[in-house]
This record gives sequence, structure tokens and C-alpha cells, in this order.
Amino acid sequence: MKCTVCRGPAVIDLRRHNANFCGDHFVKFCRDQVARAIHDHAMLRPGERVLVAVSGGKDSLALWDMLLETGYDVDGMTIGLGIGDYSSASTDAAVAFAESRGVHLQHVDLRRDYDYDIPTAAAATRRVPCSSCGLSKRHLIDKAALDGGYDVVATGHNLDDEAAVLLGNVLRWNTEYLGRQQPVLIERPGFPRKVKPLVRLGERETAAYCVLRGIDYIVEECPMAEGNRHLRYKDALTAIESESPGTKQAFYFGFLARASERFQGDVEAAQDDLKPCARCGSPTTGDVCAFCRLVEQASGRDPVPVELVRPGRGRR
Amino acid sequence: MKCTVCRGPAVIDLRRHNANFCGDHFVKFCRDQVARAIHDHAMLRPGERVLVAVSGGKDSLALWDMLLETGYDVDGMTIGLGIGDYSSASTDAAVAFAESRGVHLQHVDLRRDYDYDIPTAAAATRRVPCSSCGLSKRHLIDKAALDGGYDVVATGHNLDDEAAVLLGNVLRWNTEYLGRQQPVLIERPGFPRKVKPLVRLGERETAAYCVLRGIDYIVEECPMAEGNRHLRYKDALTAIESESPGTKQAFYFGFLARASERFQGDVEAAQDDLKPCARCGSPTTGDVCAFCRLVEQASGRDPVPVELVRPGRGRR
Repeated sequence: MKCTVCRGPAVIDLRRHNANFCGDHFVKFCRDQVARAIHDHAMLRPGERVLVAVSGGKDSLALWDMLLETGYDVDGMTIGLGIGDYSSASTDAAVAFAESRGVHLQHVDLRRDYDYDIPTAAAATRRVPCSSCGLSKRHLIDKAALDGGYDVVATGHNLDDEAAVLLGNVLRWNTEYLGRQQPVLIERPGFPRKVKPLVRLGERETAAYCVLRGIDYIVEECPMAEGNRHLRYKDALTAIESESPGTKQAFYFGFLARASERFQGDVEAAQDDLKPCARCGSPTTGDVCAFCRLVEQASGRDPVPVELVRPGRGRR
Repeated sequence: MKCTVCRGPAVIDLRRHNANFCGDHFVKFCRDQVARAIHDHAMLRPGERVLVAVSGGKDSLALWDMLLETGYDVDGMTIGLGIGDYSSASTDAAVAFAESRGVHLQHVDLRRDYDYDIPTAAAATRRVPCSSCGLSKRHLIDKAALDGGYDVVATGHNLDDEAAVLLGNVLRWNTEYLGRQQPVLIERPGFPRKVKPLVRLGERETAAYCVLRGIDYIVEECPMAEGNRHLRYKDALTAIESESPGTKQAFYFGFLARASERFQGDVEAAQDDLKPCARCGSPTTGDVCAFCRLVEQASGRDPVPVELVRPGRGRR
């Protein structure tokens, strides 16, 4: 197997691109794909301050590395979810990366800062853990970006993630979510711009990128996510992809090109109703936002004024 | 396990309906589902003459049986595809059913009437056999219905089929096919109305219906379809359905309720260009329709005037 670019020994084959790469050209390929996503979807402008949401897994660390190597001004933020060894190992991986690169990593810990963690939240809400986990992460990264004066939040959602989310959204024909599923969410009052620069890369590729770049990431999947719908949709698509390479890419980018705008009206209808949360000021459709209600429900305490739990605004 | 209706011993459980049925109430359930599909989508009107496309499998024979039992005026049509034992056994099952009910079955044979069969067509076109098979069946059933003065063609597509086709259409975001994917295709010049009364029943249910009604159907799947995309999509959805019963039904009917009309414009754009085939008069976008081109390519003969190969117009 030879590198499609230099004919040297290849280390990876990419069937959906009908290409093989040596280590150097694979790293270049990944960065080119990220550059293309950033360009095609107008994700970042020169000089903007970027906050990357870091889990400690392959995707977020590969993303952080690629953005830094490309010269972007990028800090990281990680959230301690309180999911036993998995969470502590995740934080360790994020901290080790930040130290190795001499870059700033902000750390919010659900237990320390908000008196709950994902296991207690799942028990209190009697919903799947991924539900309160996603809600917590979205709220806290948005808040950290706005408080810290960042221009944009970058997340490590890759092509496998986005294709699986899209499959879930079409299986239920959740038209509002379909309208929202974009590689860029533009900034609105109370929300920073959010971008997904890895949408052109699969998880096998981000893992290989980390290996080739010597980045230690946490390999294990979240133990609380086991058997969840998202993973089931991923498995279904991966089974189809293995017989028809390129299916996921055609599915996701075909959606963006030919279907997405047909669902925009459903998003706008839902956005008309947003007003500030009575507790924290975040945009919400009710009086109190879902995050403040979660904190109250999961911590068993009265929600404290948001000032008391706000992490420091300082940058480095 | 008890029947949800009469509390007698149940013979089948339907997880997506959270129900179990004894034999009698299951047969009634199936007929009710078909009646509901016919009503909800305005498929058939009283007194109309129906031509059902009969393969000899569980779906088409269950459909024919249910329509006859409900009192519709239904003839059958079957097509000899020339796929070895599979085709002869399929035809035998269709003939046996027609004889047992004393109803009329029209038989067209590709080899006898058009000088080709599906294996030779697949070899000549160098495409998957399902491609020329589907094309042949659509053309010949349409033609038989128009020639025979039928009001409507009924096909045995079930919920599993429709959900799998829908998945294929969204994976490629084939917006024209998405716009067309309806349980009823209304009549247009050169096309009869086509209806799918089994869209509310899964294939496990049509099989159970046949067993309970003592209908001998051909159990084996078409040997030439093995490994095709449609079956792969079916498998993917079945894996998801087994964890989340009701997924297929929500996917298909959610599409009809909330998404389908968003793709109508793409169908209308494609229909503007239809004109009669120079050989057979069927609507087509080119000079000669795809069926006439297939006959020419697969039979190796000059296409004969359509009159010479037209099956008899007589009804019984």
C-alpha cells in the first residue's frame, strides 16, 4: 500500500476517498480537510479568539492541535462530569495536552462548582445520562465563551457524529433539529458562534491523527453512554459505510446542499419565543432555563445566583 | 401471552403496537390496518377495478387475499422473470392462489413475450439485476393496467420496504425520489394510479397473516437480490427497530406528515419533460423509454412494434 501523494509506504487507507497516505501526508490531509471545512462554511476569521471544548478524547485534542498548528488563537475548556475514572482520566489527558503545548485550559467541575455530577443528574431527572450531560456541556461552554470574551466556540464533532445525529433527526423527522443541524451556528444574543471544523473527518481519522502526532487521548468511550441511541445510529451507518464507502459523507453533505434549507422555517418559528432565564439570563423558552432547573433538581439545593458559581473571567 | 382484544391465547406479539393477538384478532388487525391505509390515503373508491401485482411472496398474496375478503374487484398479474427455480416457484404460488380463490391471474413472461429475462438483462446492462427487474415490473404492470382498463394498480410494498426505500433516499438525499415516495401515486397520462395498501404492516405481519390464512407463498428471497442495498438498509433499520420498536413506523409516517411536501417541487420539475416513447408510447424523458431500450439491449433483437408483444386485453 503506497501513499497516493508521494508513493512512499502508506500507513492508512481512506476508502471513501479512494486514497492511501503516509504519516506526513495523512497529517497534511487532515489539516487540509479542516481548512476546507473552515473555509467552505466561513467558520473562523483571522484574529478571532477561539474556545475549543475539550473532552480529552481523540476528536477534541486533534481539533485543538490542528487549530493551534494552523496559527489560530485557541484556548481550551474542559468540564469535570464526575463519571468516575473516565472523567478524571479525561481531564488528565486534556491537562497533559495543554501543558505540553503551553496553552490555557479552563476547567469547570460540575461537583465543585455546581454541586452535582452526571450520575446524580441522571438519577434525579430519571432520564438517560447523555441528556443532562449534553445540556450541561452546551450551557457551560456557551457561558464560558461569552464570559471570556471569545468570538467562537469550536467543538470536535466529526463526520461520524454528525451523520449519526442526522440519522436520528430524520428517523424522527424532528424538523426543528434538522433545521439547526449545521456545521456553523451563527451567534445570536446569549449564544456564541459555534463551529464544527472536523465535519470532513471520520473518527478513525482523528484517532490516527492523534497517534501520528503523539497525542495521548482517552481511548475508552464514556461508560454511561453505552447502548445509547447515538451509538446505535453510528453502528447502523458504519455497517452501511463498510459496504458503500462514502455513504456518511454523501448523507451529511447532501443534506447540507439539498435539504437543510427546507427545514429553516421550523427553526425560526422556535426562536421567536426566547427570553432571558430569570436565574442566569441565558436565552430560554420558559421562565427558568433547562440548565438552572437541572442544577436545582440534581444538586438538591436552591439555585444560587449565577455570580456565585461563575468561573473566573481571566484568560491566562 | 394473551390476546389484547379477547384475552385468549395469543399467537403473535407486536412490540411497536404494544399488543398481542390471537389468530382471529390478528387477521382482523391486519385487515383493519389495510382498511385504514386505504381510507387515510384515499387509495381506492368503491366499485373500482383493481389489478394487484403478484410476485407469489407473502406480501402480494396477503394483499390480494385481504382486498378480495374486503369485497374489492381484484385481478392479479404476475411476471415470469426467468430467475431459475425461484421464478417458477413464484409463479406456481401465484397460480395456486388464483385457482383456490377462482380469480383471474394474468401472466406475462419476459422470455416468452419479450425475448429476455432478468439474468440476461443484468449481464447485458452490466448493472445490478434489481435495476432491470424493477424497471421491467413497473413498465409491464402499468401497461397491463392501462390495456386492461383497470382503475388502479395495488402493490405489496410493506412498511419494512417503504422505510428501507426512504432510508436509501435520505442517505443520498435524492430529492426527486423523496418527493415521489407516497403510498399513492395519482394517475397521470400514461400512468395508472398506484397504491400501497400494506404500508401499515411489517413483513413479519404479512408472513404471519399468510400462515394463519393457509396461504402458500414462496418463502425464499430472490437469489439475485442477495446483498443489494435495499436489503442492507432493511437490516440497518431492523437493528434499530429491535432496540426501539416503532422506529420504522415513526420514520415513514413522520416523513409523510412533516417532510414529504417539502420535496414536491423537485418532482414537478422532473415531470415537465415527459413525452411519449417513440416505440411504445409510454411517457418518457428521452425519445425511447427505458423499457424499450432494455428490451433492445437484453434481447439482442430490434425492438418489435409493441402490438406484437402485447398480452391479451381480455379480463377473464
